[in-house]
Amino acid sequence: MVPESQTPEVNSVQVPLGERSYRIEIRTGILGSVASLIRDAVGDLSHVVVVVDASVRDRWGGRIEASLQSAGIRTNWSCVPSGETSKSVEQLSRLWEFLLAAGCDRRTVVVAVGGGVVGDLAGFAAATFARGIRVVQVPTTLLSMVDSSVGGKTGINLPGAKNMVGAFWQPALVVIDTETLETLPDREFHSGLAEVVKYGVIDDPEFFEWLTRHAADLVARRPDALRHAIRSSCESKARVVGEDERETSGRRAILNYGHTFAHAIEATAGYGTLLHGEAVAIGMQMAARLAVDLKRCEPKVHRRQTELLQACQLPTNLATASPDEMLPVMMRDKKVAHGKLRFVLPTAIGHVELVGDIDEAAIRKAIESESRYGVETPAPPSSTG
Amino acid sequence: MVPESQTPEVNSVQVPLGERSYRIEIRTGILGSVASLIRDAVGDLSHVVVVVDASVRDRWGGRIEASLQSAGIRTNWSCVPSGETSKSVEQLSRLWEFLLAAGCDRRTVVVAVGGGVVGDLAGFAAATFARGIRVVQVPTTLLSMVDSSVGGKTGINLPGAKNMVGAFWQPALVVIDTETLETLPDREFHSGLAEVVKYGVIDDPEFFEWLTRHAADLVARRPDALRHAIRSSCESKARVVGEDERETSGRRAILNYGHTFAHAIEATAGYGTLLHGEAVAIGMQMAARLAVDLKRCEPKVHRRQTELLQACQLPTNLATASPDEMLPVMMRDKKVAHGKLRFVLPTAIGHVELVGDIDEAAIRKAIESESRYGVETPAPPSSTG
Repeated sequence: MVPESQTPEVNSVQVPLGERSYRIEIRTGILGSVASLIRDAVGDLSHVVVVVDASVRDRWGGRIEASLQSAGIRTNWSCVPSGETSKSVEQLSRLWEFLLAAGCDRRTVVVAVGGGVVGDLAGFAAATFARGIRVVQVPTTLLSMVDSSVGGKTGINLPGAKNMVGAFWQPALVVIDTETLETLPDREFHSGLAEVVKYGVIDDPEFFEWLTRHAADLVARRPDALRHAIRSSCESKARVVGEDERETSGRRAILNYGHTFAHAIEATAGYGTLLHGEAVAIGMQMAARLAVDLKRCEPKVHRRQTELLQACQLPTNLATASPDEMLPVMMRDKKVAHGKLRFVLPTAIGHVELVGDIDEAAIRKAIESESRYGVETPAPPSSTG
Repeated sequence: MVPESQTPEVNSVQVPLGERSYRIEIRTGILGSVASLIRDAVGDLSHVVVVVDASVRDRWGGRIEASLQSAGIRTNWSCVPSGETSKSVEQLSRLWEFLLAAGCDRRTVVVAVGGGVVGDLAGFAAATFARGIRVVQVPTTLLSMVDSSVGGKTGINLPGAKNMVGAFWQPALVVIDTETLETLPDREFHSGLAEVVKYGVIDDPEFFEWLTRHAADLVARRPDALRHAIRSSCESKARVVGEDERETSGRRAILNYGHTFAHAIEATAGYGTLLHGEAVAIGMQMAARLAVDLKRCEPKVHRRQTELLQACQLPTNLATASPDEMLPVMMRDKKVAHGKLRFVLPTAIGHVELVGDIDEAAIRKAIESESRYGVETPAPPSSTG
């Protein structure tokens, strides 16, 4: 039953960035042809360094290796330990030396296989090795498929500061194979759906409608539903990134819907307690609540978002959320300039606006409304997955 | 007697790079006004991190600090040990954490004070902190004034590989105060003149003529001669960088005149034995010799270059240069693509061309001609300074 139209399925999305434009290929069961996809995109190709997350190497590495080998491409493999702690100076330094030892030159292509951690780390290493070599992103988590692999943000963490150093470095190609989602744990998969829902709320009311009808297909991981949801998400992201590649005009900031709250939730709950997408879901709820409280949108926006997030098996509030803990973290966010907080708030499903100068009391109230202090929300759901 | 014309002196050079355009201010005794120069260039300015070379902090830091303080700008200072070993992952990591601890945000301006080491390191830290904050270069060596502070190349070394990682990151402003050259040791000062001579050979025949007449004024460090030579050098570099910012068209490669040989000389002589400019002077001699041997230019090009380099107190050959040692290093140069060496060779004073596919025997002969194996060159001069 999905997608509903009978028109042939579109398999790719173009990210329009002038000479840095690139395609996102969205298929099912395409990893065995990855070499020809890359060669089509980059032209000359004789040397590849695959940077792979340890958790997916055994399951998907073989197909990629076979494809590269049969295409006669010299290949080196570097394995990165799973988890956020790999976005470190130490792993970056190790990867730089690996690229050097592998004899990389400016024609080498780095292929990042895994989730956001590997994509961000390998992308930053590629952005800076020899002052920039090409990178192809092969995301294997839903979150990285619809978010970090597209748009060119790369980087690592400093102690206590996520994504504090990095570069804008667009990939030469993004290869998304929904088959890799088969092995993703439930909780991680649902977490990725939070960013999918986000695109519906910030940019695409029709997609939001589609999601409300097809949440069950997504949760069941039906490949056709996945391809449609990923494509719609990437189309939204590509549109926004195309308008504001380096986050200078403010347009790209709409992608941070829910994220100022989410980062504070992650930091105060302890990184790792909640998955990023779970924190984003709760953060979106706080942002929508704030918008309702400020009379910037109707209460049904918050309600419809709640229903969709719940249908996607996501938490919609956090019993332990504390304004006293979250507010100081929010003020340290690197997107704060000169001490001013700015929020992305919905005006309707499919449209958001940037709002500055919000009274601290209103922010406090929005956090409390989605916590145990709240009086309007149901009891928090148990953690998924 | 310099400059010869009576027209008012031009104090600045514009580097034409669209929205990344910037000015190079070339003055004498301007450090005490550095805050207003920076504020004019970047607009809002409330926080500066000065990254300073340990060898110049005591001599010039006070004036800069006084200027920033009287302008009411919050300032943090980070001191970097002198020497090439500071272009390391360790110093980069330390600087990133310093920027974080200093509370930098996207409006902070990094000011790099020192030679190429500090400029490259601080420039790379600025290029990557928060995915890019503004940097102002305040070079205090002749070499960095005419070379590394202009053009946006930033980076650090990996073990055994110079400038192996980095970014193209244009400064918001370059402030050159020739007064800072007063304290530069002779040998380092003369080393900087090699790059000055280079611009005459590759791009500007009139400037080459001027240099032949005014070499003595330069060696005497006359401020008016210095300003003219630095301005002409920066004009050449700005022109070339403006045509090929990211080294993609091949145009920017002409700035590497003499450098393929020079890097091999530095690596085989042991880094630190020769100063970079000394190696460049000898490398230019090898390149000019190669061009003469290949009948791509007249012998007088080599001869006139020799005379000017000698007038600038620079070595023009190297007794110990060995093709057997240098050639393998040259083949590993990161500018080599698919194992092909490419040379920048003069066709006349003021003009060079890119030449590929040169017979190894010819390269060997050019190296030997400028070494003790050579029969056409005089005995090597003793080291200067």
